[in-house]
Amino acid sequence: MILTVTLNAALDITYRVPALTPHATHRVTEVGERPGGKGLNVARVLAALGHEAVVTGFAGGRTGAELRDLLAPLPVRDALVPVAGTTRRTVAVVDGATGDTTQLNEPGPTVTADEWSAFLDAYASLLRDAEAVALSGSLPPGIHVGAYADLVRRARAAGVPVLLDTSGEPLRRGVAARPDLIKPNADELAHLTGAREPLRAVRDARRRGAHAVVGSLGPDGLLAATPDGLWQAAPPAPVAGNPTGAGDSAVAGLLSGLVEGLAWPDRLARAVALSTATVLAPAAGEYDAAAYAELVGRITVTERSATA
Amino acid sequence: MILTVTLNAALDITYRVPALTPHATHRVTEVGERPGGKGLNVARVLAALGHEAVVTGFAGGRTGAELRDLLAPLPVRDALVPVAGTTRRTVAVVDGATGDTTQLNEPGPTVTADEWSAFLDAYASLLRDAEAVALSGSLPPGIHVGAYADLVRRARAAGVPVLLDTSGEPLRRGVAARPDLIKPNADELAHLTGAREPLRAVRDARRRGAHAVVGSLGPDGLLAATPDGLWQAAPPAPVAGNPTGAGDSAVAGLLSGLVEGLAWPDRLARAVALSTATVLAPAAGEYDAAAYAELVGRITVTERSATA
Repeated sequence: MILTVTLNAALDITYRVPALTPHATHRVTEVGERPGGKGLNVARVLAALGHEAVVTGFAGGRTGAELRDLLAPLPVRDALVPVAGTTRRTVAVVDGATGDTTQLNEPGPTVTADEWSAFLDAYASLLRDAEAVALSGSLPPGIHVGAYADLVRRARAAGVPVLLDTSGEPLRRGVAARPDLIKPNADELAHLTGAREPLRAVRDARRRGAHAVVGSLGPDGLLAATPDGLWQAAPPAPVAGNPTGAGDSAVAGLLSGLVEGLAWPDRLARAVALSTATVLAPAAGEYDAAAYAELVGRITVTERSATA
Repeated sequence: MILTVTLNAALDITYRVPALTPHATHRVTEVGERPGGKGLNVARVLAALGHEAVVTGFAGGRTGAELRDLLAPLPVRDALVPVAGTTRRTVAVVDGATGDTTQLNEPGPTVTADEWSAFLDAYASLLRDAEAVALSGSLPPGIHVGAYADLVRRARAAGVPVLLDTSGEPLRRGVAARPDLIKPNADELAHLTGAREPLRAVRDARRRGAHAVVGSLGPDGLLAATPDGLWQAAPPAPVAGNPTGAGDSAVAGLLSGLVEGLAWPDRLARAVALSTATVLAPAAGEYDAAAYAELVGRITVTERSATA
C-alpha cells in the first residue's frame, strides 16, 4: 500500500453565493462538504489509479468525526490518529458571478506531545507495510517545525521511499533530511533556494538534500531534476479550470509511478496528465478520468541539458 | 416561564482574519462558536433579567448536537425538537483591519411535515406553562410561509401573549393573525406597510392586525404604537459598537416588561437600555450589564401625538 500523511486534515466546506460583497450579509445557496487536506486528496487519486491507499494524520472533535464519516465510503483506509482538539474547517466561498474563490482556513487543533508520540507509533507501524509515503501540507499548532524532517528520516530508516510536499521552514528542514522526492511550486522553490529561475532552483534544491526535485510550474507543467537527468513535462495546451488539488494529483502520479517502477519521463507524463485532468474537473480536488486517459499519451516530455 | 421559538437556529461561527480580500486565501487567526438564532439570543437576555427562559425550534445533525452542547451550560432550558436535517451554520468574518463583518448564512435543514407536526405538539405543551412567547427569525426550508401566523393563532387560543419578530411574507401573514406585539425595523416596517415615515408606518402596521407595534429605528431608539398610546424612547446619546443582537435584546426587554406588568414607557425604557447595552458589549449578541444598569434610568420616553 501507499501511505499518505496529513497532519492538518480538514473538513472542506464550500459555500456558493450569488456574489461576494465584503461587509454584506449573504444567503448561501449551496453548501458542499468533503474530507480535506492534501494527503487525503493524494490518497483518493492513488485509489482511483488502482493502488491501495492508507491515510494517516490527526482527527478530533465533531469536525474530525464528520471528516471520518465522509471518508468511510471512499476507497481509502482511514488510519487517522485521534486528538483531543478539533479538526479544522476550511471554507471556500465561491462567487457565482465570477467563479472566483475566497478561502478561509482555520488553524487546526493544537497537538500535544503525547498525541505526537502516539502518531509516531502509528506511523512506524504503517511504514512496515508501505511501498511509499507522501507527507503533505501544513503543520497544525503544537507540532515542531522539524516534524517533517523527523518523518522523512524515519521513512528512510524503514527503507520506504518518501515524498515531501510542504512549504516554508518545514520544507527547508525536511529537505535537509534527504527525502526521495519533493514537489514544490515556483514560489516554494524560490523561497527554498532564493533562485527565481526554475531550472536553477530545482538543481539547487537537489543540492540541498532532496534526491529528486519536481517543480510544478502551473500551466507550464513540471520540471524535474533527478539522479537520472533533467526533464520538463507539459500538457499539449493550456487548460482553464479550478487548480485546487492539481498539485496533489501530480503527487499521486509521481508516487504511483515510483511504486510501479516507471521511468522518469513516464512518471512525469502521468503526473502532468493527472494534474491537468484535475484542473478540468468541475469539482475541486477531483480529476476527470476521461480527460486523463485522453491526455496521458499526449504530454510532451523534453530532456533538458544541465547547462541550459 | 417565557418561551422563545427559533425555527432556524444556527451554530454561529466567528472568524477573525487580518484583512478580508476577495479571491485570496486567508489564515483565520481566531475561531469563535456560539449557539445562534434570534430566539436563543432573546432567551439568554431574559435569563440574565431573572426570567425562566425556554427555547424551542429545531436542531439536527452534528451542528445541531454542537449547538445543544453549547446551550447546555447556559441558564436557558433546551426544548429544541430533533430534525433529520442538519442545523445551519452562520459564518461571520471579522476584518481585523476595519472591524467590519462579512456574513455567510447557510439556508438550514429542510423540515418535513412530520417534523413540523412534532414541533406543533411540543409547542402546544410548552404554551401551557408559558407567560409569554416570542417567535423570532427566518423560516427554514420546507416550512410554509404561513407558519408564524399559525403559531400566533395557537398562542392566542392558549391565552399566551405572543411577540412576532420576523420579516417579509412570514411577517405580513403573521400580522394578520393578530399577534400582541411585533418589533420590525425601519426596512421591515416599510416593506410591510409601504410607508417610509416611521410614525405612519407603525400606526398602519397596527391597523393590519398587530395589537402593538414597536418599530426599531436603530440609533433613534424605539417608536411604539400601542392600545395605550404612542411613544418614542431613545438613548441619552448615540453609541458606537456592534449592533448584532440589539434587536433581540429589545425583544427580551419588551417581553419581560409585559410579563412583569410594566407600563409601556417603562417597557420601552428597558428595551432601549438593553439594546444600547448590547451595542456597547464587545462580544456580538451579549449585553453589558453595567451599561444597562447605568442607562435604564436615563432613557428619554416621549409621548407622541397621533396626528404628528
